[in-house]
Amino acid sequence: MKAELLYEGKAKKVYRAETASNQLVLSYKNDATAFNGKKKESFKGKGRLNNEISARIFPYLQQNRIPSHFIERLNETEQLVYETEIIPLEVVVRNVATGSIVKRLGFQEKVAFRAPLIELFLKNDDLDDPLINDDHALLLTDLSYAELNEIKAKALEINTALLELFESIDLDLIDFKLEFGRLVDGTIVLSDEISPDTCRLWDRQSGEKMDKDVFRQGTGDLLKVYEEILQRLEARS
Amino acid sequence: MKAELLYEGKAKKVYRAETASNQLVLSYKNDATAFNGKKKESFKGKGRLNNEISARIFPYLQQNRIPSHFIERLNETEQLVYETEIIPLEVVVRNVATGSIVKRLGFQEKVAFRAPLIELFLKNDDLDDPLINDDHALLLTDLSYAELNEIKAKALEINTALLELFESIDLDLIDFKLEFGRLVDGTIVLSDEISPDTCRLWDRQSGEKMDKDVFRQGTGDLLKVYEEILQRLEARS
Ligand SMILES: Nc1ncnc2c1ncn2[C@@H]1O[C@H](COP(=O)(O)OP(=O)(O)OP(=O)(O)O)[C@@H](O)[C@H]1O
Ligand SMILES: Nc1ncnc2c1ncn2[C@@H]1O[C@H](COP(=O)(O)OP(=O)(O)OP(=O)(O)O)[C@@H](O)[C@H]1O
Ligand SMILES: [Mg+2]
Ligand SMILES: [Mg+2]
Repeated sequence: MKAELLYEGKAKKVYRAETASNQLVLSYKNDATAFNGKKKESFKGKGRLNNEISARIFPYLQQNRIPSHFIERLNETEQLVYETEIIPLEVVVRNVATGSIVKRLGFQEKVAFRAPLIELFLKNDDLDDPLINDDHALLLTDLSYAELNEIKAKALEINTALLELFESIDLDLIDFKLEFGRLVDGTIVLSDEISPDTCRLWDRQSGEKMDKDVFRQGTGDLLKVYEEILQRLEARS
Repeated sequence: MKAELLYEGKAKKVYRAETASNQLVLSYKNDATAFNGKKKESFKGKGRLNNEISARIFPYLQQNRIPSHFIERLNETEQLVYETEIIPLEVVVRNVATGSIVKRLGFQEKVAFRAPLIELFLKNDDLDDPLINDDHALLLTDLSYAELNEIKAKALEINTALLELFESIDLDLIDFKLEFGRLVDGTIVLSDEISPDTCRLWDRQSGEKMDKDVFRQGTGDLLKVYEEILQRLEARS
């Protein structure tokens, strides 16, 4: 199914697909990294869990009229996607203040924003993925003003859809990171992954963190938590 | 002319004016500070120079339909202004890449942006005046969406007017910082100061830096440079 390895990232390997020249195989790895790669550990089974979780989330979003690169899950750790030219932005949506924004701007931990907040970070490891504003984004990417606004509108739609999905499995969606990319025809679609690696999810009953923060903060068993999320998603459908 | 001291900043003292309850006396100090106060030195005559320079710039802007807090220069180091409730933003306009944006985002030093770039920083010394985006600004100030856009439009108008002013005295305006505040009736006007402390100015012939960077970088005589700017402004009118 897969031809040559194009790129190995921190969480996934990216292969050219054998089937079609505009398709890729994303292979989810067992590695977890945090703090821009400074903390690193491998968890046997993590790749499978994130592959399966994201392979449930993308189709759910497609049903909610959110097009994405996702085509299908291929096996335990791999999924087939359309190749995109990734726009070098991390688009973060925040419903509740936690993490970097608390330290950076003094928001109070665990307090909900009066409306979802969007932040753009430049995808650039050398610069440590700095926060940028819209003017910067227009200079540092090939996005037009209209496209940047479309991406932000899309991010809010995705938030609405995901809030509903996670609420239905008793999780509060605190914040998450998205990447968008351009298909060969120029259309911009949601790309990369949506998983407990890229979302903060808090159990609605216990308040317990059920995402990569258990690894960042060393407060719990990553595999158990990711397994629980997959089980809740499976029980739902 | 001045009653009680309300606030002593790094560069100015702020007194209530005796003449009217909604007026202040700004007294320009000789202190220069950089790197959020970590570098500090006093220059005898700097207060007079910045007072006189800004007392030429504000009237020039008023003639160009940019209202501000400025009423009149009172004496060598003091000026009378309307009291405003300062909006806790540093509004930075950049024409050419230099300084923090080069390190932060990797722009190439000395290259002009294709259009003037606006950056907002939260005025908060404890947080080190962090860069923020529009969503943050709307949460962290009492500005409405329309008011924030007005401020940004005003900052670009000020840029256009200042580029012309400085070009006429053979200086390139590289970037500058503005503060805005609300008058008692709620109107938002330009406040604080405009001086070589808050603008980067490069000589159009020699390329020499003629602003606070000579102090930040220890590369020249601050008083001589500020004196030269005042003389060019005086020769103009
Ligand atoms: N549809 C796609 N087409 C092309 N590249 C993609 C697609 N989806 C995701 N990618 C890219 O695959 C790469 C590998 O993913 P991974 O999450 O491992 O990267 P990473 O190490 O986290 O680096 P980054 O910080 O750039 O995301 C990323 O650069 C991601 O942007
Ligand atoms: N018209 C005005 N009404 C009220 N306050 C004003 C007005 N103009 C300027 N100020 C405020 O006067 C204070 C003193 O100025 P100064 O430049 O010394 O402050 P600073 O130490 O640089 O601190 P900051 O970083 O807050 O500017 C600043 O807080 C500034 O915002
Ligand atoms: Mg990634
Ligand atoms: Mg100041």
